[in-house]
Amino acid sequence: MILRTLCSVLTMAVCFSLIPVKRLTPAPALRPDEQVAKQIRDRGLTDLDAYAMLTELTGTIGGRLSGSPQAAAAVEWGRQTMLKLGFQNVHLEPVMVPHWVRGAVEQGMVWGPNSGTALTLNLCALGGSVGTPEAGVEGEVIEVHSLKEAGELGDRARGKILFYNRPMDPTLVNTFAAYGGAVDQRFAGASVAARVGAVAVMVRSMSLAIDNVPHTGAMGYEAGVPQIPAVAISTQDANQLSELVKADKTGRARIKLSCQTLPDVESANVVGELVGSEKPNEVIVMGGHLDSWDKGVGAHDDGAGVTQSLEALGLLKRLGMTPKRTIRVVLFMNEENGGRGAAAYAAKHLVGKETTIAGMESDSGGFAPHGFGVTATPRVYRRIQGWSSLLQPLEADRLTPGGGEADIEPLGAKGVPLIGLQPESQRYFDYHHSIKDTLDKVNPRELEIGAIAMATLAFQIAQHGL
Amino acid sequence: MILRTLCSVLTMAVCFSLIPVKRLTPAPALRPDEQVAKQIRDRGLTDLDAYAMLTELTGTIGGRLSGSPQAAAAVEWGRQTMLKLGFQNVHLEPVMVPHWVRGAVEQGMVWGPNSGTALTLNLCALGGSVGTPEAGVEGEVIEVHSLKEAGELGDRARGKILFYNRPMDPTLVNTFAAYGGAVDQRFAGASVAARVGAVAVMVRSMSLAIDNVPHTGAMGYEAGVPQIPAVAISTQDANQLSELVKADKTGRARIKLSCQTLPDVESANVVGELVGSEKPNEVIVMGGHLDSWDKGVGAHDDGAGVTQSLEALGLLKRLGMTPKRTIRVVLFMNEENGGRGAAAYAAKHLVGKETTIAGMESDSGGFAPHGFGVTATPRVYRRIQGWSSLLQPLEADRLTPGGGEADIEPLGAKGVPLIGLQPESQRYFDYHHSIKDTLDKVNPRELEIGAIAMATLAFQIAQHGL
Repeated sequence: MILRTLCSVLTMAVCFSLIPVKRLTPAPALRPDEQVAKQIRDRGLTDLDAYAMLTELTGTIGGRLSGSPQAAAAVEWGRQTMLKLGFQNVHLEPVMVPHWVRGAVEQGMVWGPNSGTALTLNLCALGGSVGTPEAGVEGEVIEVHSLKEAGELGDRARGKILFYNRPMDPTLVNTFAAYGGAVDQRFAGASVAARVGAVAVMVRSMSLAIDNVPHTGAMGYEAGVPQIPAVAISTQDANQLSELVKADKTGRARIKLSCQTLPDVESANVVGELVGSEKPNEVIVMGGHLDSWDKGVGAHDDGAGVTQSLEALGLLKRLGMTPKRTIRVVLFMNEENGGRGAAAYAAKHLVGKETTIAGMESDSGGFAPHGFGVTATPRVYRRIQGWSSLLQPLEADRLTPGGGEADIEPLGAKGVPLIGLQPESQRYFDYHHSIKDTLDKVNPRELEIGAIAMATLAFQIAQHGL
Repeated sequence: MILRTLCSVLTMAVCFSLIPVKRLTPAPALRPDEQVAKQIRDRGLTDLDAYAMLTELTGTIGGRLSGSPQAAAAVEWGRQTMLKLGFQNVHLEPVMVPHWVRGAVEQGMVWGPNSGTALTLNLCALGGSVGTPEAGVEGEVIEVHSLKEAGELGDRARGKILFYNRPMDPTLVNTFAAYGGAVDQRFAGASVAARVGAVAVMVRSMSLAIDNVPHTGAMGYEAGVPQIPAVAISTQDANQLSELVKADKTGRARIKLSCQTLPDVESANVVGELVGSEKPNEVIVMGGHLDSWDKGVGAHDDGAGVTQSLEALGLLKRLGMTPKRTIRVVLFMNEENGGRGAAAYAAKHLVGKETTIAGMESDSGGFAPHGFGVTATPRVYRRIQGWSSLLQPLEADRLTPGGGEADIEPLGAKGVPLIGLQPESQRYFDYHHSIKDTLDKVNPRELEIGAIAMATLAFQIAQHGL
């Protein structure tokens, strides 16, 4: 595009006369709350500090799965960063976390004994999977599209490798809904398959992009059911494998994994705050999770939420805006494969003299925000809606019922209103839990606008209560 | 994130019991208009044909500046594509267009005779610029921040090279507003500088990204003023040059360009439609521009608008939805440096028996749409607002006053309501008019959602009128 007043079809003389030298309309006077929102916005968009922090976190530490040396480094980075930003009461809250390691071996291939076709798979172990014997696991492949279909195989599944291949529903505009509709295969597919005697499972990656990148993610084993290896394969491989087993019913696969679960490790949530000047015991919790999967560097998931939370409170601090109620940033540990940090925080802080008046979270990527999802009583929902005009200049004023992910869920279970940042969702699962979740997928301004939206809303809650 | 019902803090038994096997709540019954919108949405998100067309246009033709062989190839591609899609009355409407060519030589350097520093510039000619003598143009550099400041230099500018370095305002959330506030330097900087005796101008690229990529774009010469060479330099170079001339007031630059303007060439708008079953003479125009700058492949600007328009009408055709009023796709020629196609279309079609009831355009990039900008009477605006609930499932229901860019502006000047797709704007100017405007910056679903929004709204207008 060119600016339409700038010419194209006008004569050059008219065109030159149209060039704006300065704004002629004086800006309308702002209400005090609007003035505050504008100060936060102007400063944030000028500094873009969330991106600077994300560059540091992803560049110096990278992926940081619970229990890893990188996760420990991220905890120390979080603490140091909070101190640099001038937060108060900066401290660690220890928590024991699971320690699963991927290992060096991740291999798989499929072939059709009758058709003569073969395919080396782009795969990775799902987080929490057991490894295979050194020789691997081999079996005939059966494609299924749901847990129900897998369970109904009965004895036909014995000794086989089940291939879960139900894609995310592309007709759902919100990709989180599409993810929610498919991820049961990844999480529970192994135990459902093991109950009917399968020896391993392969799961189509949770992504709408068709490419050669496998996406990991949490899986769990049901108590009392044999634990069998579970891998994700790329969407392109899933499409090809589906063709292969259609063409040759005797199609077989072999998988080798050296992943394992080691003893729990001590880690920590990282906590810092600006203490409320009038009601210090009323606390707004604002956070993201510090751990990430090991495949990428956790830029969107959830380096974005971590650095947006730090920047949101950092902005208020830089601007000298003292909240009347306490705003506390919590960088949660172990969201991806255990939720231990979230549970520990709730267990420690939902008792005693302080009251958690809201939980705010960013864990849906660092894309341009559309607004917030809110889980609250109708009264509180309307109260938050009353501040949405302050988010309108950010184009982030879309409030929808239902919000908050795993890290603040334990607070919500005790009646705390939950507020989740909702960014544009189309690109998120293209990168999620894979080697593609890297800094270059994040736009500095989109990330910052999320931080500004969080700071704007958190400050209103701090000043006026809920 | 992991899906929060999926476990983390719950026991495994509870967790497994929560896995949704199927949806239990029946979907509410849809009104007929909602049913139509859902059909368009489901089909579009399943096929993703806009992206397939964009892959073809950018991959087989690439950049396509007016008058170039690539622009001619794009015209033929547009015609063939419309025929394949089954549009009616597919034809070309000839128009003479300017033919500016960049040439092989684009060089520049700056140095400080006193400080001893030097910098090779990442630059490109602005579109329409005259070239330099073979030896180049050399002069002392004066940094300015506005046309006014340049004009007020008076005799001090004689023989100098003016360096326009006012950045796009980062505090404006909408980047089109930031562009509009800075682009006067690019468009008119040369003539303002020439009036006070300058020999060339360098303009900071119109981008909020700080990198080494120059961004071209249209400039014009005022009649009766000497025509001097004009280049864009990258934002990083602009920052460095500013430091250089602060440190050494005698800082000089030399620029060499071999660009030139050749005689006008015949080209064409590409036109095709679905004829209205009840009121064929009432026409909704829907389009984007087929020409692009030569530096990238015009993926976002405006391959996006071209393929979204084709796909919007293509979707209606595939679904067998015959509009009551005619919906016409126009692929405009020469938006970037002349607007000849837009002027020719308006001159031809605003007379005679047909009535243009709305002009709809996509020329702001292929990112996830927020909604539409609408330039219309309050009555028509409210009428369009009445259909916005159909855009809500796309998260594209944000209507704002003021819409439509250069290609439908001549229709708007005659009172036709203008409707412009408004996508998320943060990334647009990072790529705009530069080598970075390539296919990999486009997300297939984001692009398609724009096409679906256009099809949805255009079909409502076609059925119900405005």
